[in-house]
Amino acid sequence: MTIFNFSAGPAVLPRPVLEQAQAELIDWHGSGMSVMEMSHRGPEFQSIIDEALADLRELMNIPSNYQILFLQGGAQGQFSAVPLNLIGATGKADYVNTGHWSTLAMKEAARFGQVNEVCSSADSRFDHIPAFSEWKLSKDASYVHYTPNETVGGLEFQWVPEVGDVPLVADMSSNILSREIDVSKFGLIYAGAQKNIGPSGLTLVIVRDDLIGKSLPITPVTYDYKKYADAGSMYNTPSTYGIYLAGLVFKWLKAQGGVAAMEAINVEKSNLLYHYLNDCGGFYYSPIAEADRSRMNVVFRLKDEALDAAFLKESKAAGLLQLKGHKIAGGMRASIYNAMPVEGVQALLSFMKDFAQRNG
Amino acid sequence: MTIFNFSAGPAVLPRPVLEQAQAELIDWHGSGMSVMEMSHRGPEFQSIIDEALADLRELMNIPSNYQILFLQGGAQGQFSAVPLNLIGATGKADYVNTGHWSTLAMKEAARFGQVNEVCSSADSRFDHIPAFSEWKLSKDASYVHYTPNETVGGLEFQWVPEVGDVPLVADMSSNILSREIDVSKFGLIYAGAQKNIGPSGLTLVIVRDDLIGKSLPITPVTYDYKKYADAGSMYNTPSTYGIYLAGLVFKWLKAQGGVAAMEAINVEKSNLLYHYLNDCGGFYYSPIAEADRSRMNVVFRLKDEALDAAFLKESKAAGLLQLKGHKIAGGMRASIYNAMPVEGVQALLSFMKDFAQRNG
Repeated sequence: MTIFNFSAGPAVLPRPVLEQAQAELIDWHGSGMSVMEMSHRGPEFQSIIDEALADLRELMNIPSNYQILFLQGGAQGQFSAVPLNLIGATGKADYVNTGHWSTLAMKEAARFGQVNEVCSSADSRFDHIPAFSEWKLSKDASYVHYTPNETVGGLEFQWVPEVGDVPLVADMSSNILSREIDVSKFGLIYAGAQKNIGPSGLTLVIVRDDLIGKSLPITPVTYDYKKYADAGSMYNTPSTYGIYLAGLVFKWLKAQGGVAAMEAINVEKSNLLYHYLNDCGGFYYSPIAEADRSRMNVVFRLKDEALDAAFLKESKAAGLLQLKGHKIAGGMRASIYNAMPVEGVQALLSFMKDFAQRNG
Repeated sequence: MTIFNFSAGPAVLPRPVLEQAQAELIDWHGSGMSVMEMSHRGPEFQSIIDEALADLRELMNIPSNYQILFLQGGAQGQFSAVPLNLIGATGKADYVNTGHWSTLAMKEAARFGQVNEVCSSADSRFDHIPAFSEWKLSKDASYVHYTPNETVGGLEFQWVPEVGDVPLVADMSSNILSREIDVSKFGLIYAGAQKNIGPSGLTLVIVRDDLIGKSLPITPVTYDYKKYADAGSMYNTPSTYGIYLAGLVFKWLKAQGGVAAMEAINVEKSNLLYHYLNDCGGFYYSPIAEADRSRMNVVFRLKDEALDAAFLKESKAAGLLQLKGHKIAGGMRASIYNAMPVEGVQALLSFMKDFAQRNG
């Protein structure tokens, strides 16, 4: 039976990447060492990280005045690191609240400075992204933070906020590399690796040069961007195997045609599901406003929640894994990151139709 | 040619561990998923972390009033996390300075409270561990921090400091699981994984219950022990693949007879090298006081430094990798952690003898 894994993260990785990692696990390129056994100061690992950095810069068209850092601690580590490094400019920051993750980011930042909630759709259970015209941006924010894709709620910005000269900071954990973006519109982009990049334990930060070197005095050394920028991400021992795997994913993305090609496939995959949710006559439905539905995390519910358990049990038996929604959201969630093939979405769609027919 | 890898970390892993990881990489136990692709909230990964925790508790005989936490950020992350979590008790901490790593730990702690240097052998280039009778312990320290094994300098405590009721904190990054210790003598033990535990990017903390929950208000959430203790190390997504590999290493250690059996082998391995350094007539020498020499990191020098380059080139050609000393220490360093077999040390010894004969 073919297995399709819809986990929200850690999530499915491209099969060719896993196969290459398996083949090279014990002896990398005749070095006699596993990548896991290499000194991060040696020429073998240096070549691995150099290639990963160059490939990512090419894939995302990252301008030369941006540094790429590989850190640890996940996006939640960055919930602290971002204010610790950036909020010192004015002591204040603007946060856009569109769901679970932006709420957590905002709460953590409030421990290190004054935080202004620019907008919130909490009153309607985060079922939409507030229109930009309703946002109350500050005049003196050190930065504006938002979450382009809410993994739990299943919302995604189809647009980039225009915030003028204030640095725009984005938690792209769950949609980085899934769609084309203009990096120059951002001051800082961060992402946990475990959705579209590689294994958990690796954290990516892309940060503009002028925002580096302004950390608060209480910043732990491992969260100080300048230390890592100055040391090519090797201020201390990084997640070497994570960087290696990310590098394999970047090569795979290039072989698929890059980010533009992935975006076209991601539009196709998400449309397959959303069109059916619109047209299925109400057996299933999306709780999210149509314009703000995520291409990465397709959240849906069964009208009759009593059928949830059967849906999950039968879908698992059919090889469709980890479809249960986040505990705070309920319902179902199909996470369909870059590594999920169209065939996986088609298999899910067939199962959904069949289940609806049998239970409708 | 058989390869032996003497890297100080990331370091050699047990061959059976790598072979099992390779066999299971694409499909773990028939789950249809790589461990890297599993949700950390699912039953499969829960069983992996539960077994790893139980095996480590058994291996180190960790009392039930100690929590085992898997974090991120390496030992340098703990250089901040330890004071952020513990120094609040009195605002002061004692630091024992025996080399590169204890110096860095002390410097970082001084950013979060008042630090007292208990003793230092910096004046003699850290060639020995100051006698306990010379230590100037404070009366009101929140904790006493020391580094049982200095990876760069090649010093190791063969004794545990008796500091009374003040919690003893140890950076065991490079000698954890290599010798028997009585955990109940410590308030907190931490270790980066990349020497005796698993791959880099995983950090182990063993902390006594009464020291949890006292963090400073400026502690980033990902460095707050209480958050991780309350969530079974899964406050956020941990380094799942790192925990899986650590679990395989723990199983391998149990199969070898546990920590006591490893200690006997480690004594044998280090004695092979140190006895030769003492008896070789001065061609090579150890810069470290005999009582304080590390079983894990055998630092040695050639009397004629002009031969260093030839030694490194020829040893590499003989399959003996990564013998160069740390850049701040110079000379050579053979890191012989648990996963280095006796045969590797014998091969190094043979090479050293042959090289000395040809160049002496």
